[in-house]
Amino acid sequence: MSSTPEVLISEVGPRDGLQSVQAIMPTADKRRWIDALVEAGLREIEVGSFVPARLLPQMADVVDVVRHALRHQGITVMALVPNRRGAEAALAAGVHKFTLPVSASEAHSLANVRKTRVQMVEALREVHALRREAAPGVAMEVGLSTAFGCTLQGAVDEDEVIRLAVACVEAGADEVGLSDTTGMANPAQVRRLFKRLRAEIGTRAGAAHMHNTRGLGLANCLAAFDVGVRTFDASLGGLGGCPYAPGASGNVVTEDLVFMFEAMGVSTGIDLDKLMAAREPLKTGLPHEPVYGMTPEAGLPKGWRVHHHPSNPSTSSG
Amino acid sequence: MSSTPEVLISEVGPRDGLQSVQAIMPTADKRRWIDALVEAGLREIEVGSFVPARLLPQMADVVDVVRHALRHQGITVMALVPNRRGAEAALAAGVHKFTLPVSASEAHSLANVRKTRVQMVEALREVHALRREAAPGVAMEVGLSTAFGCTLQGAVDEDEVIRLAVACVEAGADEVGLSDTTGMANPAQVRRLFKRLRAEIGTRAGAAHMHNTRGLGLANCLAAFDVGVRTFDASLGGLGGCPYAPGASGNVVTEDLVFMFEAMGVSTGIDLDKLMAAREPLKTGLPHEPVYGMTPEAGLPKGWRVHHHPSNPSTSSG
Repeated sequence: MSSTPEVLISEVGPRDGLQSVQAIMPTADKRRWIDALVEAGLREIEVGSFVPARLLPQMADVVDVVRHALRHQGITVMALVPNRRGAEAALAAGVHKFTLPVSASEAHSLANVRKTRVQMVEALREVHALRREAAPGVAMEVGLSTAFGCTLQGAVDEDEVIRLAVACVEAGADEVGLSDTTGMANPAQVRRLFKRLRAEIGTRAGAAHMHNTRGLGLANCLAAFDVGVRTFDASLGGLGGCPYAPGASGNVVTEDLVFMFEAMGVSTGIDLDKLMAAREPLKTGLPHEPVYGMTPEAGLPKGWRVHHHPSNPSTSSG
Repeated sequence: MSSTPEVLISEVGPRDGLQSVQAIMPTADKRRWIDALVEAGLREIEVGSFVPARLLPQMADVVDVVRHALRHQGITVMALVPNRRGAEAALAAGVHKFTLPVSASEAHSLANVRKTRVQMVEALREVHALRREAAPGVAMEVGLSTAFGCTLQGAVDEDEVIRLAVACVEAGADEVGLSDTTGMANPAQVRRLFKRLRAEIGTRAGAAHMHNTRGLGLANCLAAFDVGVRTFDASLGGLGGCPYAPGASGNVVTEDLVFMFEAMGVSTGIDLDKLMAAREPLKTGLPHEPVYGMTPEAGLPKGWRVHHHPSNPSTSSG
């Protein structure tokens, strides 16, 4: 019953989702939402961004949210840090893991973080230097955004994506994943790029972060799984996308992704009923935002609870 | 430029879609819709059902619709026939291909056609006898509905599905496909069942008919493609489901399926811009029905038309 889940679903809603919407979720709802996610069995949660509150007022309470999340045992509390200053604040708050936004597309990099790709790799190096001296136990991942195409520049050269991934590893990243920020990926491309990524950086090849912009989100996750990817970013209720990638929207819905894997017999460690219940604090905290998900709407199939035995009950505390 | 497409997208909207909604599309709109589908490059279209108009008033004009569709060269005009009487009428109208509804679940069979599975195989045998003597050139396919699970009875035994497929071939079916009528399929199951199907009936293994009820429609199509399936049912705008499978809805959206394959470099012979344009007569003819599709909402990716060259321009006439 307590075997290790085969895939890690990394919940990005409290960061990627919340910073994509105008409305600001009250801190109390963020806490309740994170509690519900942990209760459902999520083991890695991106809980916020360490960026100036004037730029992202949705994240003004990030220190409080991190501290609350840290009350839960056995989960990885992750936060986005764009630079050394953000990383210092995140370390002070006590996060377990950084994620840094590096864009495969130069145009997206400039629009998203006002830095070139080279400057972002330099920022990564600085953050790595900081954590090496101050907190060597803290992990550092990069999700290469627009790795499959960019709404600003169009196609993104695959050789450049791989070279950038290698540069990120050389700058100190523990893991480099690939993000379909703009919903342009297709399963053949996903297989090709993740295979190349693994060939180049081995076990440092990280998460698949897919969007459902054109309906291909789960097919792309399946394609990534087929070539060995075992970490998948997803957002409860499909909340969020990228505000600086015009027309792009639609993180993969955690509920549907978990349903797909569990139905396939691939354990996630997540309890689907409890995951559905985690939609309630999200809806309460953002009453005017649409919340997506086909599985929540259709419900679990007849016979599911009889035939399906979750492999790993959730861990929770606090 | 005119190489044979690698996959056949079989459009089921004018039958499966239209008979699932209460509203009746006017005949003139059905004609315009079919014309637009042919113009987009669809080569197989299920245009209607030969069932009594008192049971399905949406299909009362099926003879007229078939005759109109037959004005187009180079397409396969298919119709659903539940029994010998329907097949006689369909032959008289001039269809190229029959499809018969055989359910893998006994409960669904009784609800859908008021016959047992054994009785439906017998009906298939009678239709086969008819076409053998009257129209040997007419093709006959079976889509095994509820092959991946049933909202009425729950799980459906996989051995039974395969045995029933073999029985359908023995009764004269040229092709037997598998339908996820209730949106319960997952990619692992799709691969397993289609592999078994091919092992048992070889090249008579037919189409994958997937639903998007829980968001897995395209992932399941990808899974079927991976194990050699090359014919896929889909419905423009995702119209339709199955009225006798409570809670089930959501045919795979043709636009999203075509986008997935074309983006992967798998040719469909379909022009995506013209396919989007085919939504207009559908919307005009059914103004109060929701029309789905992620790709139509998001639009084609930046750079798509520059980098993507459809392999096969559509054929059309009439």
